[in-house]
Amino acid sequence: MAVGWFYLSVLALCSLGSMCILFTIYWMRYWHGGFAWDGSILMFNWHPVLMVTGMVVLYSAASLVYRLPQSWVGPRLPWKSSHAAMHLLAFLLTVLGLHAVFEFHNHAKIRNLYSLHSWLGITTVFLFACQWFLGFSVFLLPWASMWLRSLLKPIHVFFGASILSLAIASVISGINEKLFFSLKNGTKSYSNLPSEAVFANCAGMLVVVFGLLVLYILLASSWKRPEPGMQAEREALLHGGE
Amino acid sequence: MAVGWFYLSVLALCSLGSMCILFTIYWMRYWHGGFAWDGSILMFNWHPVLMVTGMVVLYSAASLVYRLPQSWVGPRLPWKSSHAAMHLLAFLLTVLGLHAVFEFHNHAKIRNLYSLHSWLGITTVFLFACQWFLGFSVFLLPWASMWLRSLLKPIHVFFGASILSLAIASVISGINEKLFFSLKNGTKSYSNLPSEAVFANCAGMLVVVFGLLVLYILLASSWKRPEPGMQAEREALLHGGE
Repeated sequence: MAVGWFYLSVLALCSLGSMCILFTIYWMRYWHGGFAWDGSILMFNWHPVLMVTGMVVLYSAASLVYRLPQSWVGPRLPWKSSHAAMHLLAFLLTVLGLHAVFEFHNHAKIRNLYSLHSWLGITTVFLFACQWFLGFSVFLLPWASMWLRSLLKPIHVFFGASILSLAIASVISGINEKLFFSLKNGTKSYSNLPSEAVFANCAGMLVVVFGLLVLYILLASSWKRPEPGMQAEREALLHGGE
Repeated sequence: MAVGWFYLSVLALCSLGSMCILFTIYWMRYWHGGFAWDGSILMFNWHPVLMVTGMVVLYSAASLVYRLPQSWVGPRLPWKSSHAAMHLLAFLLTVLGLHAVFEFHNHAKIRNLYSLHSWLGITTVFLFACQWFLGFSVFLLPWASMWLRSLLKPIHVFFGASILSLAIASVISGINEKLFFSLKNGTKSYSNLPSEAVFANCAGMLVVVFGLLVLYILLASSWKRPEPGMQAEREALLHGGE
């Protein structure tokens, strides 16, 4: 694998991830009046921003920590700790994002958790919490046996990728739902594709492209920490060779 | 891997897949008046049924052909051909499913392809078409070199799994959208969770569980055609051992 490809992919990931967050912020600021933390509809506006930031972009960054060539050499503990810490931060943003929508619903007397979007979303967050606690207990704390770790590792990796896929499905259904709510009337109806609809649809497709790139690097690329004995051929990445 | 686990998973897959299709048919028959092929709203009802059947269940079955232990021995061509033929059938059902919604929209003068659901859905079908033609040209026709095949195989596998994930995201956003369309008023509104809402939400969650099980077997399980030399230890599955 050429070094050029690696840095090009990192650049693509950072750009796409930032664009996902910035598009969501712009959508909420420009068409929905910006942000507040007071139970009003402006508090709802934090929901898409925090979910995309926490559950998609930061979650992805945390998942990709072991794909950095710097993580392939030296002790694993600092990398494990940052993997866990970044996921914890992602989880905290996600919980704040949930709090934003629940508070808005409670103030406006709207029922919580009725749509399929919300059922899938809350399931995804629940799986994320289980995954974090299991990962912390088995892979970071010292008492799990190597046997248990190697048994659970492929399951941990599979659920890591699955939770990201479910988060993306939740984001897509959430953007779709929000646009049907807010674009109801006349020339501004969703089916007339006003500028907000085109912009938010593009934001959704951007999240999909970002997610696919993350999953590709996570599952299919050769950027994994090499097994002992394969170290030498990967060191090129650290020192600028091919 | 125990033989028991294998057959239990096949049973779970067949049951879940059938339930996904039957739930969708029941939803459309019981709450939306059944089916017709005349451009009316009853023609639309084919859309969810054909998409779930073609793009999710049959697509998954076609993808899992190489996970059957019977496919690990003997010549590959018959298994390749059935992999391609089943995907072609899945694609045809998908195209019929698209035709059903386009015809309904055209008759009712509703614009096509405006929602994020439709953008993601049509992208998924387009990727499926590309994947099928590339797979057919490179892996089934005889002229591609082994070098090209081994270069493209991980990409083919990755896009195979990705297209299924995108199909599931499309189904979730589609069910969510349909429920917001049809459950608008009073006690029957979506937020009051009438029986249709609970039933269709469960159908959506069932599609998610089915999809995750398929992806697990496809990507993370040990049920892959063994490389030459590892044949013996897998033969147990064919002959009933552990």
